[in-house]
Amino acid sequence: MTNDPRRVVVLAHGKFPDRAKTATGVMKYGTDEIVAVLDRDRAGQRVADCRADLPDAPIVGSMAEAPEADVLLIGIAPIGGGFDESWRDDVETAIDRGCDVVAGLHYFLSEDDEFAAMAAEAGVELRDVRKPDPDLTVAQGIADEVDAKIALTVGTDCSVGKMTASLEIVEAAQERGIDAAFVPTGQTGIMIAGWGNPIDRVVSDFTAGAVEEMILEIGDDHDLLVVEGQGSITHPAYSAVTCGILHGAMADALVLCHVAGREAIHGYESFPIRPVPEYVDLYESLADPVHETEVVAGCLNTADLPDDETARAALDDYSDALGGPATDPVRFDAGEVVDALWP
Amino acid sequence: MTNDPRRVVVLAHGKFPDRAKTATGVMKYGTDEIVAVLDRDRAGQRVADCRADLPDAPIVGSMAEAPEADVLLIGIAPIGGGFDESWRDDVETAIDRGCDVVAGLHYFLSEDDEFAAMAAEAGVELRDVRKPDPDLTVAQGIADEVDAKIALTVGTDCSVGKMTASLEIVEAAQERGIDAAFVPTGQTGIMIAGWGNPIDRVVSDFTAGAVEEMILEIGDDHDLLVVEGQGSITHPAYSAVTCGILHGAMADALVLCHVAGREAIHGYESFPIRPVPEYVDLYESLADPVHETEVVAGCLNTADLPDDETARAALDDYSDALGGPATDPVRFDAGEVVDALWP
Repeated sequence: MTNDPRRVVVLAHGKFPDRAKTATGVMKYGTDEIVAVLDRDRAGQRVADCRADLPDAPIVGSMAEAPEADVLLIGIAPIGGGFDESWRDDVETAIDRGCDVVAGLHYFLSEDDEFAAMAAEAGVELRDVRKPDPDLTVAQGIADEVDAKIALTVGTDCSVGKMTASLEIVEAAQERGIDAAFVPTGQTGIMIAGWGNPIDRVVSDFTAGAVEEMILEIGDDHDLLVVEGQGSITHPAYSAVTCGILHGAMADALVLCHVAGREAIHGYESFPIRPVPEYVDLYESLADPVHETEVVAGCLNTADLPDDETARAALDDYSDALGGPATDPVRFDAGEVVDALWP
Repeated sequence: MTNDPRRVVVLAHGKFPDRAKTATGVMKYGTDEIVAVLDRDRAGQRVADCRADLPDAPIVGSMAEAPEADVLLIGIAPIGGGFDESWRDDVETAIDRGCDVVAGLHYFLSEDDEFAAMAAEAGVELRDVRKPDPDLTVAQGIADEVDAKIALTVGTDCSVGKMTASLEIVEAAQERGIDAAFVPTGQTGIMIAGWGNPIDRVVSDFTAGAVEEMILEIGDDHDLLVVEGQGSITHPAYSAVTCGILHGAMADALVLCHVAGREAIHGYESFPIRPVPEYVDLYESLADPVHETEVVAGCLNTADLPDDETARAALDDYSDALGGPATDPVRFDAGEVVDALWP
């Protein structure tokens, strides 16, 4: 995406808002104007009927009913990241209407012969954000040479709010006049930021290199970079990505993200979440041989806790466990983390 | 490769034997018959003139001069893993003569239009061992469910002898009547074993999954699996691959490999090799949340030490540092490691 706000239609059939993490992330943190959401199960409602924290827009049943727009963004993904054929009409209508189409699926729209031919004819772009740049290569171990201070969000598990925490930290830092920038590593983050390498999709040998490349690209233009972490260093499937980001980013400070009450790795229930101090030790000792760093603060996702009082108590416990300040940047704000990162 | 020994010509132009790790690895540990080496700089010599530990064969200048064969194997790789156009004649001659061609390059022979057309016409196979199986996916965290005991070689750096140690351990175990098998993870290991996933080339999200898939495939058919490790957990570029193998393999025992006297990460000289006990702690504490394990023995590459006495002294120091038995499986033998793995 460019710097000019564009008019975006977000496809989220059957999943808006609770199972549409990409759609809601782009709506909440992106800079583009959302002109409609496509969800045939909620056609006729408005976004404001579902979620108070998102910009309001009409929800319609198909692209044919959407208002004028520049972009159709696929805001959901089936398990496995395939393309759901029931979306084909919407994508074709969008191309016909001169819209670019942005997707973060494992299935690449630009390699679909039908879409590719139509897009060429209409002169629009099919942008698969999960398609890695073919020029990526191995890390050189030089991310620490940029002028900016580098912070990285790390986690006890997947889906604990690392992207959200990173975006909230950047926003809070910017409000204080710090020249902070977000470094995206996943498809939603890339859609929000409008650039970035999909780290979970690159060749494994290039994992650290793909992070380093982004830091070298923008590091000298900012004072604080907040790199979006992925997975967890104790995750049975995704730890390789986590480790590559940890070493590639060469972060000066880590922010440990966790979900209040989660006790096992999501989807891998036989693997317990370890005690918080173990994560602190493990991330620090693993980072150290490449670039010394420490966990300076924590973000706790308290969305499932019933009220602010319970959330405050959970934050106190979490803060004690990690030995530093902690906040829920969504329920409260990211101020304490910014204090720790930029004292 | 199949189980029947085939007649193999190994291409190693300009690099045989010292800069031809794949060629010499396949010659030393593979089960196929090596009928010739191609090295135009040594044409007319014999393998026995260069290296006493490899099966003897003539060295010739081109495929046209090679004896009858079933396979041409590309046994060297330029930096970056590209295809050297000066090899094109040899590959075409091989195809013309009805040979399969096996390569571990980043450049895929099977996607070269000229080679692909010729191979189709001749009915031969172009086998790119570094091309990952498109069906790979994320790990389930179940490698420990196979019947075999799982050992993994880990290292202080790249190119310290993890593949060689793994192969020597398997051989020594088999000599004692243990049903041991090698699980390859890199292109040379795959060429030697004739199967396997190129872990450094898979999608980063599938790193652990690609190791798990191999273990599930053969784990119930053997008593001891020795998984070939890659890189080092302190490597600024390749640690993601190392971490994914560590968690995907769910090893019962680790064997720490090191090169005597190496003080910095090869090619990354500003990153020192850490004290050996740090590697023991780091590998064990990182593995533990997914599968508890320990470093039970070490392999030290003493090839650069002048004599056995110096090597023995270095082994004593290494053994003290890691707190377990250590050997150089090439200079001496892998017996002590097998003792530790299979007491």
